[in-house]
Amino acid sequence: MEKPKRSGEFEIIRRLFAPLAEGMPGAFDLTDDAAVLDPAPGERLIVTADCLVEGVHFPAGAAPDEVAPKLIRVNISDLAAMGAKPWAYTLTTAFGPAVDDPWIERFAAVLGEEQKTWGIGLIGGDTVATPGPSTFTVTALGTIGAKQNPLRRNGACPGERVWVSGTVGDGALGLKAVRGGLSYVDDADRQYLIERYHRPTPRMALGCALLGVATAAIDVSDGLVADLGHICETSGVEAMVAQVSVPLSQAARSARDKDPALTESILTGGDDYELLFTAPSSAEGRIQEIGGDLGVQVTEIGVVVASSGGAPVRVKGPGGRELSFSRTGYTHS
Amino acid sequence: MEKPKRSGEFEIIRRLFAPLAEGMPGAFDLTDDAAVLDPAPGERLIVTADCLVEGVHFPAGAAPDEVAPKLIRVNISDLAAMGAKPWAYTLTTAFGPAVDDPWIERFAAVLGEEQKTWGIGLIGGDTVATPGPSTFTVTALGTIGAKQNPLRRNGACPGERVWVSGTVGDGALGLKAVRGGLSYVDDADRQYLIERYHRPTPRMALGCALLGVATAAIDVSDGLVADLGHICETSGVEAMVAQVSVPLSQAARSARDKDPALTESILTGGDDYELLFTAPSSAEGRIQEIGGDLGVQVTEIGVVVASSGGAPVRVKGPGGRELSFSRTGYTHS
Repeated sequence: MEKPKRSGEFEIIRRLFAPLAEGMPGAFDLTDDAAVLDPAPGERLIVTADCLVEGVHFPAGAAPDEVAPKLIRVNISDLAAMGAKPWAYTLTTAFGPAVDDPWIERFAAVLGEEQKTWGIGLIGGDTVATPGPSTFTVTALGTIGAKQNPLRRNGACPGERVWVSGTVGDGALGLKAVRGGLSYVDDADRQYLIERYHRPTPRMALGCALLGVATAAIDVSDGLVADLGHICETSGVEAMVAQVSVPLSQAARSARDKDPALTESILTGGDDYELLFTAPSSAEGRIQEIGGDLGVQVTEIGVVVASSGGAPVRVKGPGGRELSFSRTGYTHS
Repeated sequence: MEKPKRSGEFEIIRRLFAPLAEGMPGAFDLTDDAAVLDPAPGERLIVTADCLVEGVHFPAGAAPDEVAPKLIRVNISDLAAMGAKPWAYTLTTAFGPAVDDPWIERFAAVLGEEQKTWGIGLIGGDTVATPGPSTFTVTALGTIGAKQNPLRRNGACPGERVWVSGTVGDGALGLKAVRGGLSYVDDADRQYLIERYHRPTPRMALGCALLGVATAAIDVSDGLVADLGHICETSGVEAMVAQVSVPLSQAARSARDKDPALTESILTGGDDYELLFTAPSSAEGRIQEIGGDLGVQVTEIGVVVASSGGAPVRVKGPGGRELSFSRTGYTHS
């Protein structure tokens, strides 16, 4: 096999990545050892990192359009789950042997579009070669105002309601479609689910608006049941979810109607990057108002209950029967 | 081959990585979506990232003791080159198939030792599996005081002197020894060079002390000639280095005496993580004083000259003859 044409590390940085740092003067066009950031007085920093591996977190041989948005968005989603506004990020790229200059050019172009969408700028990183699968790490820095408390996982209290943004299960069904499954689903629905898998919509504005409103929050990356479990374990509570209340997209509903066994994937499959949060029942009006203002669907799906020593999360099916799952969440390891 | 025993992602984080975040209250024991950092009023943040790939940046099958120190230290070195004090870091680990629980346990233990040495704490990250070589990324955050200007690469002026800390070439010769070369060198010297390759000494205190003294700085990672070239290109100047002035360890000198051809590796091989910096000749006394106070050898090795449109860096040999190199610096790509 002919070796793909690929520029050297310095050339890639200078030609393709430095322009991504233009909006960040402290990045010095990526020509220095590190970047300088000056937080506004009292501003609090929120820091998160995610690593995506080819063949594990995105399909082997995926196009840049299937990698770059996800790489940025999974991190924006973590910031959103804390109520933070995106600011800056570092990017390390370990490019596998098949990655050539056109791939990297498109990758950088899509990163540029993502930066504009989410209001974040590149400040540094590292560009290396790997004999293995391409591996990308983003560390994202966000901010919340002075004296503001970030949304945490540990504030859920018995009696509070459980909410979720958008629709649940599209990511998991999208992954099945990417892998050639769901052949019985309409083409348009399959495309919708695949798009949701590759380009999730982090709920940035919603996260910021929920500061002081939600008592606990997380983004749905491991799966609805597992992530609600994370809130419950950290908060020392349990939760009951009504399956019928869980919001599904038209595409997911259509797929599930054709194969009811998909219910488990929808509830436990992950990769949705919706916000899952708790709030006192008195906040219902305010939450609906926020959702309306932002044009983001918000749905009450359950209730927080005191710990009984049982499963942290129980899901009641349509007949009131408790659902059981062979797995409660996706783990990448 | 039997599959090595390895705990799941959540278990590794809870049991091995969460204790590394103990000194950082805003890391929430790694139980949340992101960490919260509160910079002191006016404090400036310095941010850098490095990615190390098994088989590229450290030997395939390397022990944790050969990986963890380097992973932390290459980032501390970048902070030092800006004059910053280490504060916090994110770590993403993509563990390859051969990595088992004992490996990760030792890896975490060594990271803990490194944290104490360099005064930095873990605040977050991601733990995933890869079918390829183990790949690690650290994004490190450091600080400099309000109103302080970081050391940059772009401040070197004609007439200034070029300085380097410690000794040059040990990293490159250590890599040769790791790969089975330098068989003609004494065992003790080989061990010294290998140790310098695996556990470089970032010049943290020196970098901080040079704020306001050095006019430009970089750490020697790509090689003395290439890194001085980076300063020259960014500053729009050229530099002349006297080979005889370049400080060598006793081990490197002994190796070079046995094989004079090693001179090229010493001057261009990289992985030294010493500080290379420029300063006006009037600062000589102050620089020697700083070196003395910190117990760090500092050596004047050359002079900055105006740009002549020639090579950015020229090295004069003992007889005044200009050395030429088949390569000017290490590139990892």
